[in-house]
Amino acid sequence: MMNIDFNNVFEENIGQFGISAEAFKQKKAMIPQIHKQMTEKKAQMKWRALPYNQSELLEDIKNTAKRINEQFDAFVVLGIGGSALGSKALFSGTKHTFYNMLPKEKRGVRFFVEDNVDPDRLCALFDVIDVKKTMFHVITKSGNTVETMAQFTIVLDLLEKQCGGILDNIIVTTDQKTGIMRQICDANGFKCYVVPEGVGGRFSVLSPVGLLSAAVLNIDLEDLLEGARTADAACCKETLEENPAYMYALVHTLAMEMGVNISVMLPYADGLATLAEWYAQLWAESLGKCVDNDGNTVHAGQTPVRALGVTDQHSQIQLYNEGPFDKIITFIDVKEFHRTLEIPHPQTDMMDARYLQGQTINKLIASECSATKYAVTKNGKMNLSITLQTLDAKAMGELFFFLEMATAATGEMLNINTFNQPGVEEGKIATFALMGREGYEQKRRELQEQRKPKEEFLYTV
Amino acid sequence: MMNIDFNNVFEENIGQFGISAEAFKQKKAMIPQIHKQMTEKKAQMKWRALPYNQSELLEDIKNTAKRINEQFDAFVVLGIGGSALGSKALFSGTKHTFYNMLPKEKRGVRFFVEDNVDPDRLCALFDVIDVKKTMFHVITKSGNTVETMAQFTIVLDLLEKQCGGILDNIIVTTDQKTGIMRQICDANGFKCYVVPEGVGGRFSVLSPVGLLSAAVLNIDLEDLLEGARTADAACCKETLEENPAYMYALVHTLAMEMGVNISVMLPYADGLATLAEWYAQLWAESLGKCVDNDGNTVHAGQTPVRALGVTDQHSQIQLYNEGPFDKIITFIDVKEFHRTLEIPHPQTDMMDARYLQGQTINKLIASECSATKYAVTKNGKMNLSITLQTLDAKAMGELFFFLEMATAATGEMLNINTFNQPGVEEGKIATFALMGREGYEQKRRELQEQRKPKEEFLYTV
Repeated sequence: MMNIDFNNVFEENIGQFGISAEAFKQKKAMIPQIHKQMTEKKAQMKWRALPYNQSELLEDIKNTAKRINEQFDAFVVLGIGGSALGSKALFSGTKHTFYNMLPKEKRGVRFFVEDNVDPDRLCALFDVIDVKKTMFHVITKSGNTVETMAQFTIVLDLLEKQCGGILDNIIVTTDQKTGIMRQICDANGFKCYVVPEGVGGRFSVLSPVGLLSAAVLNIDLEDLLEGARTADAACCKETLEENPAYMYALVHTLAMEMGVNISVMLPYADGLATLAEWYAQLWAESLGKCVDNDGNTVHAGQTPVRALGVTDQHSQIQLYNEGPFDKIITFIDVKEFHRTLEIPHPQTDMMDARYLQGQTINKLIASECSATKYAVTKNGKMNLSITLQTLDAKAMGELFFFLEMATAATGEMLNINTFNQPGVEEGKIATFALMGREGYEQKRRELQEQRKPKEEFLYTV
Repeated sequence: MMNIDFNNVFEENIGQFGISAEAFKQKKAMIPQIHKQMTEKKAQMKWRALPYNQSELLEDIKNTAKRINEQFDAFVVLGIGGSALGSKALFSGTKHTFYNMLPKEKRGVRFFVEDNVDPDRLCALFDVIDVKKTMFHVITKSGNTVETMAQFTIVLDLLEKQCGGILDNIIVTTDQKTGIMRQICDANGFKCYVVPEGVGGRFSVLSPVGLLSAAVLNIDLEDLLEGARTADAACCKETLEENPAYMYALVHTLAMEMGVNISVMLPYADGLATLAEWYAQLWAESLGKCVDNDGNTVHAGQTPVRALGVTDQHSQIQLYNEGPFDKIITFIDVKEFHRTLEIPHPQTDMMDARYLQGQTINKLIASECSATKYAVTKNGKMNLSITLQTLDAKAMGELFFFLEMATAATGEMLNINTFNQPGVEEGKIATFALMGREGYEQKRRELQEQRKPKEEFLYTV
């Protein structure tokens, strides 16, 4: 269960840089049309079916996960962006902070998500895993993701050399029909899961892309999906008063129109720092669009900022309190942590810090969260609060699905295509060209002919 | 050594949303005055002396670090904000990605920075360390930091119970004269280092605050400080043509005036992700100010965004390329990584991904960095590039000091106080009030009397 409080986005609570009652009322008139669109497009938004249509698959995933925990020492996700961020969020959100360092009897297989192609980091991974005893989950929807294909090539070679056979150490999740990866899987008989048709990377966490990780981590899949269904029940409602996704979309759309171009996610729980990363992709890639659905140039989008309470109070809050009125902050706080830590009465005299003794760290983080909400509100900065009862599989499912629905509704309000990402093509093509891929010779020449930098703007230190 | 290329902030390279030659020329006229201020205030900016005035201290720190590595299993920094971020940046920037998981003979003591008060995370730490065999470095300049004092209270109690004596497991870095922590140290005889007078948290990495961590990690302190001196030599120069800190300040100030309110740091090296966190504090807390030096209300500041290449190409680049013209991106790339990883020729047929074979991951990350620079430039987004030869102690010292000087110069251009942080007081006081500290009863009542949220803006999911 989660509660969401939108009060502190309004002028009456935060002053002149808040949303006025009049602006809110006007914008609210969009809701019937938005609801119509969200309802009509439901079948197209195939990720919306994921909480409901996978019961058969779950058994397979659970059995596979059981086998992985029995037969392997480590589980490595090879993927990037939407293929990685859901797994990272699930891992941090529900597991021990130092999971991989726990003694074996207190955890499942060691868990890694490799979402970069830094050579030092990749080599470091191979220093701490035994590839023979590692299951690699290779995820690329298109089968064309250069980072994942490079990682996969390296891993296959290592497995061939060290194991002879490789079939048992590889699971692939890719498109059902198309792409290089599909061809390679068909030719080699790897165990495969499918990224369901029409489900984009950043909306795929509740598909096998994220579910296999969840199952390997012994996260209850039914709870996770039940959480998503709970969010869905609220986020399918017709009216603004009942539907928190529409409300989230409406206040963010109004904020953007007022020049608020930054959306801060500020969870007060260490485990949710990676949820903020997942949200950052969802929000940035979905809404950052050059043209709208009518072909107008709009350069839409709001820049997500990933923050963490209380840590960032000592880093970002000075700016949030005193700086420009350019951000809307989503606090996430957790009522009950899994553990309680008392601040004791040591023999050492703590002088004027004695006031803390006999209280708990749990009370401290809650107080700091309240204090920061109070301060940013007093400083006139838009903020809203999501409060979770506890941080578990259900809560993660709720958060994922609520934020997906909110993002989709925001896209409708902005009249943009929430589900494409044409702006990443330029860089992809340039990478292919620089890596000498056939068919990209023209782009390679173009890159080589780039304007020479002016010497006067070059510095050597 | 590092190279910095500012060409792609200018109109002539990126089009209409770049800085025009005319605006640049006009702003450049500020430089003599800025240089005068930076020179006059040098003695006040006591952090600028840190690369030069600590040679005696270094021996003590190195001996202490040697003893820690000989006698302990783990080293834990208890601190937050400026007391933590430098250590985190040094650790990630120069050490193995999975340092704490390496076998003992391949590393020093295990290294942790505890910069939050999440009860689940703190309890998790105590699950994986043996407090008796752990050295705690407790850092708080004011001696008043509630998070650190709470952590410290817990640790003292554990040490008293488990060890009887506690002196050997505690090192404190705090103010030389004032604060609760100074009193506690004086009363108990803990080993102490001093945060030098006039050095604020976010400018303290090259003081004992960061140096002890560096020494414990076997990072060469002389190299680190030599890197800082190299940066200083360039950043003390008089003219814009010679001084990269003034250039960084100038283009960012111009960008802010043009409405560019976001500064993205985008390193293409996993180890520098935490440097971006360190920079985020430096930039946000230094420049995010309500009033200027003449008392005018300005709400200055630019929001730092911590990003990571290539990972964020699959998360943020869609927005950067197609979204609003509201950000300036600082790329950081590394010419030579420590390790080289070939993309081999496995027996398995990689179909159309064969073009990658025989190349290296090193070339891939470099190509992706070039490709992304090309794409954001083509899309008209301001960007600059810092290129490091290699990522080592010297480079870290250079980066720290260059960015500190650039931030200080930017503060001068904005005519604000770069070195205070009045905007965090409100939240601190509210936390004291909620934790029942004596003297904060009035604030507590004020907090309790806060306006009730309107029911219509509350949602339960």
